[in-house]
Amino acid sequence: MKEAAKKPRLHKRQYKPAGLPPGTLVYVGEKRVETVRITYIDYDEQNLAEKQVSNVEDCFAFKTTPTVTWINIDGLHDVQIIEKLGRKFELHPLVLEDILHTGQRPKLEDFEKYIFIVLTMLTCTGDNQTVETEQVSIVLGSNFVISFQEQLGDVFDQIRDRIRNAKGRIRKMGPDYLAYSLIDAIVDSYFTILEKLGEKIEILEEELVAEPNEKTLQQIHRLKREMIILRKSVWPLRELISGLQRTESALINESTGLYLRDVYDHTIQIIDTIESFRDMVSGMVDLYLSSISNKMNAVMKVLTIIATIFIPLTFIAGVYGMNFKYMPELGWRWGYSAVLLVMVLVAVVMLIYFRKKKWL
Amino acid sequence: MKEAAKKPRLHKRQYKPAGLPPGTLVYVGEKRVETVRITYIDYDEQNLAEKQVSNVEDCFAFKTTPTVTWINIDGLHDVQIIEKLGRKFELHPLVLEDILHTGQRPKLEDFEKYIFIVLTMLTCTGDNQTVETEQVSIVLGSNFVISFQEQLGDVFDQIRDRIRNAKGRIRKMGPDYLAYSLIDAIVDSYFTILEKLGEKIEILEEELVAEPNEKTLQQIHRLKREMIILRKSVWPLRELISGLQRTESALINESTGLYLRDVYDHTIQIIDTIESFRDMVSGMVDLYLSSISNKMNAVMKVLTIIATIFIPLTFIAGVYGMNFKYMPELGWRWGYSAVLLVMVLVAVVMLIYFRKKKWL
Amino acid sequence: MKEAAKKPRLHKRQYKPAGLPPGTLVYVGEKRVETVRITYIDYDEQNLAEKQVSNVEDCFAFKTTPTVTWINIDGLHDVQIIEKLGRKFELHPLVLEDILHTGQRPKLEDFEKYIFIVLTMLTCTGDNQTVETEQVSIVLGSNFVISFQEQLGDVFDQIRDRIRNAKGRIRKMGPDYLAYSLIDAIVDSYFTILEKLGEKIEILEEELVAEPNEKTLQQIHRLKREMIILRKSVWPLRELISGLQRTESALINESTGLYLRDVYDHTIQIIDTIESFRDMVSGMVDLYLSSISNKMNAVMKVLTIIATIFIPLTFIAGVYGMNFKYMPELGWRWGYSAVLLVMVLVAVVMLIYFRKKKWL
Amino acid sequence: MKEAAKKPRLHKRQYKPAGLPPGTLVYVGEKRVETVRITYIDYDEQNLAEKQVSNVEDCFAFKTTPTVTWINIDGLHDVQIIEKLGRKFELHPLVLEDILHTGQRPKLEDFEKYIFIVLTMLTCTGDNQTVETEQVSIVLGSNFVISFQEQLGDVFDQIRDRIRNAKGRIRKMGPDYLAYSLIDAIVDSYFTILEKLGEKIEILEEELVAEPNEKTLQQIHRLKREMIILRKSVWPLRELISGLQRTESALINESTGLYLRDVYDHTIQIIDTIESFRDMVSGMVDLYLSSISNKMNAVMKVLTIIATIFIPLTFIAGVYGMNFKYMPELGWRWGYSAVLLVMVLVAVVMLIYFRKKKWL
Amino acid sequence: MKEAAKKPRLHKRQYKPAGLPPGTLVYVGEKRVETVRITYIDYDEQNLAEKQVSNVEDCFAFKTTPTVTWINIDGLHDVQIIEKLGRKFELHPLVLEDILHTGQRPKLEDFEKYIFIVLTMLTCTGDNQTVETEQVSIVLGSNFVISFQEQLGDVFDQIRDRIRNAKGRIRKMGPDYLAYSLIDAIVDSYFTILEKLGEKIEILEEELVAEPNEKTLQQIHRLKREMIILRKSVWPLRELISGLQRTESALINESTGLYLRDVYDHTIQIIDTIESFRDMVSGMVDLYLSSISNKMNAVMKVLTIIATIFIPLTFIAGVYGMNFKYMPELGWRWGYSAVLLVMVLVAVVMLIYFRKKKWL
Repeated sequence: MKEAAKKPRLHKRQYKPAGLPPGTLVYVGEKRVETVRITYIDYDEQNLAEKQVSNVEDCFAFKTTPTVTWINIDGLHDVQIIEKLGRKFELHPLVLEDILHTGQRPKLEDFEKYIFIVLTMLTCTGDNQTVETEQVSIVLGSNFVISFQEQLGDVFDQIRDRIRNAKGRIRKMGPDYLAYSLIDAIVDSYFTILEKLGEKIEILEEELVAEPNEKTLQQIHRLKREMIILRKSVWPLRELISGLQRTESALINESTGLYLRDVYDHTIQIIDTIESFRDMVSGMVDLYLSSISNKMNAVMKVLTIIATIFIPLTFIAGVYGMNFKYMPELGWRWGYSAVLLVMVLVAVVMLIYFRKKKWL
Repeated sequence: MKEAAKKPRLHKRQYKPAGLPPGTLVYVGEKRVETVRITYIDYDEQNLAEKQVSNVEDCFAFKTTPTVTWINIDGLHDVQIIEKLGRKFELHPLVLEDILHTGQRPKLEDFEKYIFIVLTMLTCTGDNQTVETEQVSIVLGSNFVISFQEQLGDVFDQIRDRIRNAKGRIRKMGPDYLAYSLIDAIVDSYFTILEKLGEKIEILEEELVAEPNEKTLQQIHRLKREMIILRKSVWPLRELISGLQRTESALINESTGLYLRDVYDHTIQIIDTIESFRDMVSGMVDLYLSSISNKMNAVMKVLTIIATIFIPLTFIAGVYGMNFKYMPELGWRWGYSAVLLVMVLVAVVMLIYFRKKKWL
Repeated sequence: MKEAAKKPRLHKRQYKPAGLPPGTLVYVGEKRVETVRITYIDYDEQNLAEKQVSNVEDCFAFKTTPTVTWINIDGLHDVQIIEKLGRKFELHPLVLEDILHTGQRPKLEDFEKYIFIVLTMLTCTGDNQTVETEQVSIVLGSNFVISFQEQLGDVFDQIRDRIRNAKGRIRKMGPDYLAYSLIDAIVDSYFTILEKLGEKIEILEEELVAEPNEKTLQQIHRLKREMIILRKSVWPLRELISGLQRTESALINESTGLYLRDVYDHTIQIIDTIESFRDMVSGMVDLYLSSISNKMNAVMKVLTIIATIFIPLTFIAGVYGMNFKYMPELGWRWGYSAVLLVMVLVAVVMLIYFRKKKWL
Repeated sequence: MKEAAKKPRLHKRQYKPAGLPPGTLVYVGEKRVETVRITYIDYDEQNLAEKQVSNVEDCFAFKTTPTVTWINIDGLHDVQIIEKLGRKFELHPLVLEDILHTGQRPKLEDFEKYIFIVLTMLTCTGDNQTVETEQVSIVLGSNFVISFQEQLGDVFDQIRDRIRNAKGRIRKMGPDYLAYSLIDAIVDSYFTILEKLGEKIEILEEELVAEPNEKTLQQIHRLKREMIILRKSVWPLRELISGLQRTESALINESTGLYLRDVYDHTIQIIDTIESFRDMVSGMVDLYLSSISNKMNAVMKVLTIIATIFIPLTFIAGVYGMNFKYMPELGWRWGYSAVLLVMVLVAVVMLIYFRKKKWL
Repeated sequence: MKEAAKKPRLHKRQYKPAGLPPGTLVYVGEKRVETVRITYIDYDEQNLAEKQVSNVEDCFAFKTTPTVTWINIDGLHDVQIIEKLGRKFELHPLVLEDILHTGQRPKLEDFEKYIFIVLTMLTCTGDNQTVETEQVSIVLGSNFVISFQEQLGDVFDQIRDRIRNAKGRIRKMGPDYLAYSLIDAIVDSYFTILEKLGEKIEILEEELVAEPNEKTLQQIHRLKREMIILRKSVWPLRELISGLQRTESALINESTGLYLRDVYDHTIQIIDTIESFRDMVSGMVDLYLSSISNKMNAVMKVLTIIATIFIPLTFIAGVYGMNFKYMPELGWRWGYSAVLLVMVLVAVVMLIYFRKKKWL
């Protein structure tokens, strides 16, 4: 199963232990980080506070402050932390369950007081060979955003930077803009994956034309697999964002709408590109199969040419290798030369025939 | 037909005997259990009563009690029991017919006083080789849930457990939550089937890469068959649950809505995964066909190499095996050696050619 | 064209003779019965009258009676009868045209005073080899149902029986229930066709695995053809019945709605099954093609093994068949034995190679 | 390019000369008739006038008469005629442009005072080998219908006949009924094309089973091409007619609605049939490909049988053709007979093996 | 990567440098022109002013004039120009970002004061081998149109000409008609691309029938690629234009609606044609694959005929080449002739067999 382990997994859902009612909190994923890392950034236009805390209770104060607070949790295996946070910020048990049961389909749920968003973050592993998926859950409240990730490392560093340096409008806007920024960063990172897929397609196409072999099709197959995973992450995203746009929730300011439209456009563009890639890749399978056939054809031609030239010649030689007493030709002075001549003639005729058939 | 019997059946519908008007009650399935087992669980937050009864009349008292009653019938061949229950709980004849005519498509019907739900429960047989389908019919009334199953054994044991031990909120909620729990349990069991399908796909993929043979494609075909069955069970489920969510029936409490949304999400996720699996499997057929072609290619290459090397050599030997009187070479001192040399040269040239062609 | 005649026809539409305005009544089908058979059943809860009449005028009296009258016409070639009926029951010329121009697509048309329904009845011919289609047109009025069939023999015998014996509720219900019963009988008969298709698929699948030959694919092709016909009959049915359900016509009682929902469910189930069958059958084509490839592979292997073993051996024999004067080996005492030994060695090496390649 | 000229063209659109603003009138097609033919039929229930005129102005009087006037223009290369007509009947420049820029997609445009309809008329050429397309533009006014055709010859002769002989209701109805009749005639002519396609499919199927060759697939390909053209003409028709049905234009009388429903049904039926044909034809490609494979298989089997029988035998003969001095068998009295016997045995064993493999 | 560079690119999106907030203006494309060219045409029915300016500020005056002003920017690498324009004409930062981030999906955005349109202009490169894409962004205001192009050279020359020479109605209409004209010109240019694709398809089809080779499939693949690009440009266009038609923006006059309907029809026609092309091309892959198979079949037949004729003959010669002492035939007077006769007979029988098999 080692081989399989390297492959991107199509279906990733961990099951809650049997016998538990819905809403019971058990983390079902593998423990991907050693310790849970809790960080917060609290800001408004003038002020900024950023800290890594070891007790989740240290973030509770921000629930009532007027500033925007972004609490980020890396690592989900410590269920207690999630539970405490959930109780403090009044999250529904099913929300907490969805956070812990990673492998969810991207979705949007509007609980009046907060909006719950599940996204899939895709990252290429170091060798660019496989795409890894990680669930990012976002809770958007009236003055806070809480994000949950399975492990350390994300695509949000630019956002942190912009908050710290007050670049752009992020410090002037509310938590909905922050949530938008998180979604936008994830969608933007899909473009990187797409770019890499595109490159792989280009390389495979060249390989297909130049020198296709059994590995090529397996790589095409792998590519398909990655595209299936990407599709599964992006298609629901479309609904999600269009849901955000159409929501009448007071949590989303009108001014954020334009930005959501922008990220929606990006999502559509990603979907378009994936569908184009699918078309390309399925055409590549045809190319591959026909190139195998062509190769077989070439092999057959060589065999046929050699065999059809020499088989008749060998037959002629065989005839004069017979030991009959009365074979007058054998005694002729120029018999041998004549036979050699005949053989050359037969070979030439064959060659002309093959040339005519365009096999040579 | 033994072979066929082992395969999962695509189409399972038993026909009512000819000449019967709609609404006549005849069980059309095979008798899957010896005797019908009738059990009930009656509960509210404080009290709990659970019993297996032999007369269905023993359950009738619960029709008017304020507690939640779950009556479960395992085995449908005793039409009388169904009929009596139906009369007592005022079920429409067509409902009873649908319960007995197993093999129905999952569906939801809202008869003001009760909601009728048909589901398909899937179970893997012991050897995990085939998926078996069983119809589960659920009648949800204002203070009762009646479930009908074709045979003993189901995926509801955890629910019974939660009721007995008052785990989670089930004892505090009404019959709609119980009905939701039953649906949820069935949907959750689909994930198990999916998991097994996923594993089979992984194994088949490895087999395809390592050592594909005729069995492999048959297994892929079987896999497709199982996916078709799963699809047939899940797609209607989506409508069903979204119907439950949108219903304005007084039988569904608002608080259950959130849970229905959760199970709806799961259904979508299952559908997504099935569609991904379909994509994967159809890619596997390509892989298989091309691997056959590649194998054929390899066979042809060996034949071609051997044949094209030795056929010319044999021809040369044939020439000097001729019995012409005047063949000067035969008398030469080094004739034999020269011919052997020529043969080696021909062979080497051929080998170089094949190497250039990358056949070696 | 005899061969073609046996095949189920995909497209069956007879053209009206040139130059006729729309609404002109000409029967375009073949004359499928000798004489037109006209029968009526007139009933209410207490009374029942059933008769075969030779003059269509004998049915006219029922137009105004309060009882439910079912007039059935078998055979359409006598245009006059249709015309008279049409005039008496005030049917639109286009309706009469649709009745006579058989091969119509199933459809529903609501002319306030009556509802016009066109259905396709499918029957298996005696040898179960082909599916035959027959158009059934139904006119549902406020107190009558008129049905038109192309030939004798239908799937309505059970309904007649139920009317005669007052089984079920049919005698208590109005003409809409009768019309529903007719539709239901036709839909139910599709299940029989499906069952037969399913069996054919099972048999073909076994054949595919055991011993596929050229006939197999032709049978698959034939199967596809039958499925296409079935699809063409069933898909429009769905619209038709859902149209009946949603109609606001006073001719359909509310109580019949539930029954229509039932037959609608059946239609959906049939469509589902056909689509599953389609999936299966297209998978079978893959199975077939790959089994041909596998067979070719097997043939090639035998050839390659025999050829690659014996070609080098024959070459060696050829070498020592040469007539050079100076071939020292020929004179050696153990030369012959040595050569035989070498030959055995070559053969063994080859066999080991093939075993390693898993060709043996 | 001669070959191409015979093929039905998929894409037929002529481009307006560069630099012209929209609405400039230039005929872009080829000149398909020598002189433009202008005819009119003017009628009401009592009167009828039919004439071919050489000046388009002769038709202008009918603009204000209460009778129904049908002006038909055959040939579009004389732009002036179209322009004059357009000015007189107040047609929008874009309408005139669409009339002249043949190769338009069938469409319906409602300009309050008139309705503009573009249709594609399909005609089989004399040898039934190809389908030719011709654009028919229809302008339906309150008391006139103007039709524009690219060349002489159409499918409207029956309509003219019905007008002349007052057959059916056409003389009693308004211009909308006339327009309907034109559309109906075109749709009916599609059935003829379908019939021919159906026949071709039947013939090709028989050929496929009996004796498929390279031409067969090219014919299938050609068939597909024709079906694509038919589809392109029919699909938009559906929208067009349903648009006519739903229009609230005063130009369409309610009584014509039923007739439109009828022609709509026909359109759906044509679409259904085309889709079925598509399914059939794609199945035929499979049949063809597998029949090639089967033929190859048969060829390989013959080669394999002959080769594997004779190669070992030849080897044996080769062995005893060697010239070793010490080959005791050569001196044996029955050596030759024994060897012959061995050869026969080998051949028999091979034949039994092939029989077991079912290759014989 | 040179090879890849020549191919049309499926996915063209440049990424904004990391760490920038949305709305930051950075041109992400390659610098396709040396210097940015700014031109304006200012006109009403009587007046016309056209000029190329070097400072974008020279266009600012037109913001308030009542005349229609068309400002065209060729080249996007000078971000300052875009920024100044944006500030002057009050464009949203996201609009400016979309202009600079070329490779956008065609789209329409309505910002009350102006409408923002993104289109893809396709141009064939000189050798007609590849299709190049260029983003054209259009801002339509109440009295101005601003268009942004990546490089010099466009399809708008006819429009400029019509403005200069007051041809058609363009000088009488507002900026919305100008914007329509730009869109129309781009859509019209798609027809040219289609025409070229159509020609390529025709040529490839002839090649496929006459003499298919490995290049052919690669060309088909390339064709598919171009069609995918075209599709990606055209499908969103459909939404875009239908959005323009349905918009309630005051910027679009009602009279322009008809023209938009016209361009909408063209878009549909292009989509139809692309889909037909797709169907054709996928049929061509089948043709190609079967032609390879047929060629292989022909090769195999030649090999089989030659081999099966000569292998038995060689065997016979081999038998009489054996050196057994007691081979009575060898001494017969007519032995040699008899053997030759037998050989001829065998060959003739074989030839008759092949003729019967239709291999000759």
